[in-house]
Amino acid sequence: MNGGESLIRALAAHGVDTCFANPGTSEMHMVQAIDAVDDMRAVLCLFEGICSGAADGYGRMRGVPATTLLHLGAGFGNGIANFHNARRAGTPIVNLVGEHARHHVPFDAPLTSDIEGVARPVSSWLRTARNSEGLASDGLDALCAALTPTPEPTGSIATLSIPADCSWGPGHSPDQREIKIVLNTIEESVIATCAGKLNDRSVLLVDGAGLSRAGAMAAGRIATKTGCRVLTITFPAKAEAGTGIFPIERLPYFPYQVLETLAGVEHIVLAGAQPPVSFFAYEASPSSLVPEGCGLTRLANRHDDVIGALQGLADYLDAPMTPTGIAASPRPELPTGDLHAESIARSLAAKIPEGSIVTNDSGGGGVAYPALQYSVEHTFLFLTGGSIGQGGPVAVGAAVAAPGTRVFALIGDGGAMYTNQFLWTAARENLPITVVIYSNRTYNILDFEYHRLGMTEPGESGSKMFDLSTPPIDWVALAKGQGVPGLAATTAEEFNHALDQALETDGPFLIEAVTPAAAAPALPR
Amino acid sequence: MNGGESLIRALAAHGVDTCFANPGTSEMHMVQAIDAVDDMRAVLCLFEGICSGAADGYGRMRGVPATTLLHLGAGFGNGIANFHNARRAGTPIVNLVGEHARHHVPFDAPLTSDIEGVARPVSSWLRTARNSEGLASDGLDALCAALTPTPEPTGSIATLSIPADCSWGPGHSPDQREIKIVLNTIEESVIATCAGKLNDRSVLLVDGAGLSRAGAMAAGRIATKTGCRVLTITFPAKAEAGTGIFPIERLPYFPYQVLETLAGVEHIVLAGAQPPVSFFAYEASPSSLVPEGCGLTRLANRHDDVIGALQGLADYLDAPMTPTGIAASPRPELPTGDLHAESIARSLAAKIPEGSIVTNDSGGGGVAYPALQYSVEHTFLFLTGGSIGQGGPVAVGAAVAAPGTRVFALIGDGGAMYTNQFLWTAARENLPITVVIYSNRTYNILDFEYHRLGMTEPGESGSKMFDLSTPPIDWVALAKGQGVPGLAATTAEEFNHALDQALETDGPFLIEAVTPAAAAPALPR
Repeated sequence: MNGGESLIRALAAHGVDTCFANPGTSEMHMVQAIDAVDDMRAVLCLFEGICSGAADGYGRMRGVPATTLLHLGAGFGNGIANFHNARRAGTPIVNLVGEHARHHVPFDAPLTSDIEGVARPVSSWLRTARNSEGLASDGLDALCAALTPTPEPTGSIATLSIPADCSWGPGHSPDQREIKIVLNTIEESVIATCAGKLNDRSVLLVDGAGLSRAGAMAAGRIATKTGCRVLTITFPAKAEAGTGIFPIERLPYFPYQVLETLAGVEHIVLAGAQPPVSFFAYEASPSSLVPEGCGLTRLANRHDDVIGALQGLADYLDAPMTPTGIAASPRPELPTGDLHAESIARSLAAKIPEGSIVTNDSGGGGVAYPALQYSVEHTFLFLTGGSIGQGGPVAVGAAVAAPGTRVFALIGDGGAMYTNQFLWTAARENLPITVVIYSNRTYNILDFEYHRLGMTEPGESGSKMFDLSTPPIDWVALAKGQGVPGLAATTAEEFNHALDQALETDGPFLIEAVTPAAAAPALPR
Repeated sequence: MNGGESLIRALAAHGVDTCFANPGTSEMHMVQAIDAVDDMRAVLCLFEGICSGAADGYGRMRGVPATTLLHLGAGFGNGIANFHNARRAGTPIVNLVGEHARHHVPFDAPLTSDIEGVARPVSSWLRTARNSEGLASDGLDALCAALTPTPEPTGSIATLSIPADCSWGPGHSPDQREIKIVLNTIEESVIATCAGKLNDRSVLLVDGAGLSRAGAMAAGRIATKTGCRVLTITFPAKAEAGTGIFPIERLPYFPYQVLETLAGVEHIVLAGAQPPVSFFAYEASPSSLVPEGCGLTRLANRHDDVIGALQGLADYLDAPMTPTGIAASPRPELPTGDLHAESIARSLAAKIPEGSIVTNDSGGGGVAYPALQYSVEHTFLFLTGGSIGQGGPVAVGAAVAAPGTRVFALIGDGGAMYTNQFLWTAARENLPITVVIYSNRTYNILDFEYHRLGMTEPGESGSKMFDLSTPPIDWVALAKGQGVPGLAATTAEEFNHALDQALETDGPFLIEAVTPAAAAPALPR
């Protein structure tokens, strides 16, 4: 057994069963190893940003890492944007990166690169293997590192660079390890302090595991007892939501909207969340979006036992076991007429199956989150790090992690283009992903931001930087090119019909939702 | 005038006229600045790997850098693979990377990232601007750095990270600088030493400017006088070639082929080239491909005056002014029958217009290089760093750099998928690029390498890592989706016809050349 096989066997023996792969020559022994180990499923992606995003989606759903298999520094580089997002999400991932054999590195062959340098900014743990006998043990160290809770923004991405001779040399099987995730529990004194801060002028700001069903229900109990509002950050990683779960509102995107939302709030209790900050800087608005004079108290960090902390707080407050304010409404009526983010959200709320997974990106997908509070229970995976092109790959990973579960990827056209190759993997693996492209043929957010920044009307050259209409992208053709059937929709009725088609299709289906670009509003700066 | 505008004006005043852009909110003042400066053309790319590859193609054709405009660390990350290739090519590039305003960075907003960390492995010069008044001067420092010849593998990529407040704060126009590229000239004693090493058992290994028309003709004079063979490395950046120019053969790819090619060679004189090394490491073959006992003498490094050195050497040798061995043959006959890399090469050799630019990538494009020696004069831009997905973006940049020139991008299907978004920019800018996709529906090279590594037949899971046939990619649909017309060809006759169509089209045109996958040969290891 060579080093590569010892590594894959050790990872598989510790519950790692999936590898999102885009290998090259230096990873051929790793391919052979995956071939030899039945418990490791390899999923080929045609661009490494799909591997990194899919590993993010998988890790968010399972809580244990998938691996990626990447080709030297350039291959890792292609994965960085979605690793950035995964790091922000705190998702556990184990990266296996092929490197030249150790004796070959000094010859500076064309693909030679500084793998550790490229990987460091997004990795919480980083090692280059030193010999084949230790490779499997290195892999388990990586797995332990990925599963060790770390403070934000460290992330949970462990990167192991594997010189080819360490995969082809003799391997050694390490002892089985007991890998346990131990979360910090929160002390009673902290809970008591937080209890004293919560009233109808307070906000309980929840993130991390606090957005699970159990966390949301505990937060709801607290709100029912104290009258506080429960909110989450603008870009959480994962929320379990829908009828039957206490609804948690997201903070909006623009800083002035956040300040409006929090106006009059006297205290914020942080349950797994960081204090709200502006996504970007503006000349005339603050970076911190905590209202002036508003107090801040931390109940738990994201890497603590957030659910336990919320339940402990609810119990401490002697809160009722069932929160009020849970939507019991039936699903909404199907929309008719104009097609826009709101009607799409309503159509989805009317039709998605119980237990679905929803991913979003830039574009209109965020509008679906509040709408789906009035639909069946589901899991919503958000764009976390702001690097667009995440929603499709995350959907691939989530679908692989949860076989048989319908996944809905809600993606703006601009964002979808960065990583359109996710469509091919969705087709290859016959994943039940319904892709909704909000095709407004513009980087609409940039048009907004340009105007928000108080600048003059953009001229021809500037306007072209936001314009995706020339040429228009034909998403149905682009999907067909990658083996994914699809339909375009220009009205709510057409969208409803297309969604029916998607739900009757076993594998992926793409709906190009032709939605109007919003005119740049007269937004406060 | 704000800092952003001062920067763009200063760069434009020093001959920088093009920006391959994928901006986000933190770059909005840079967009406004580009808008305000007529001499700066912005070309929108829908993925940053197109920006980096296009800047590479532009810089190779012009010798002066284009700029890129990228969005924080994640945006730069998306460009890394083609920056890696550009670094290997030695192409001058100036990257302008938006960063959060300096006061905003400590708040760790979601897009906050270690831009310098991400950029360092591919940048030869790196700076984060400190104030708006100095920003234009920083930009000129970056330009000077990109134009300063550096030893391999340093590259010529200058990266300037621009906090948003440095673009929106007050700008200052720096004095005009005289920027001159001064190349080392080679001493007569070195030339004399090299002259003594060249005979019919020697190789003159040429790279860099030695592959220009002038360099190739000087090398041909040397060969005519001494009987040495003239070769170039496997992956040079740029070669001017065709009937009328002394033909320079490339070293082949596989190490055993290189060793066969160099068998019996007693001395290698390096003219802008590095000694040949194996692309990858193998257990049973050496990293250095210099034959045992073969001497090595350096005439010039790539960053020296390679043309001057070759001309000096030819004169020193009193070589005839006109080399022998220049192809005077007419173009080849059009191919008929089966479609494969060789018939495609022959069709191109029969039809490309004088002065065309040809780019390649992984796939069958390399076969066109020797075939085109028997065609009109043209410029061939190669895949340099081995990170596939370069040929399309480089074609975009070359077409922007040389308006009115026909460009032929010869790309394997696997490589083309990484950066398929280049098609949209080609359509948007109506660039006369003929894209030839070698659609063999496999990572054929990996199948070869897997077998070369002496492994057992791959099983189902392993084979799937090389297989692109399920689903097959419909390249004509994929191109149509991005506004590029196209045709599929399955025979040489159909390819000839499609090429005629392409040549009658003003803008881009894609030919899906459905070529058979080669069976894995019984290659020596």
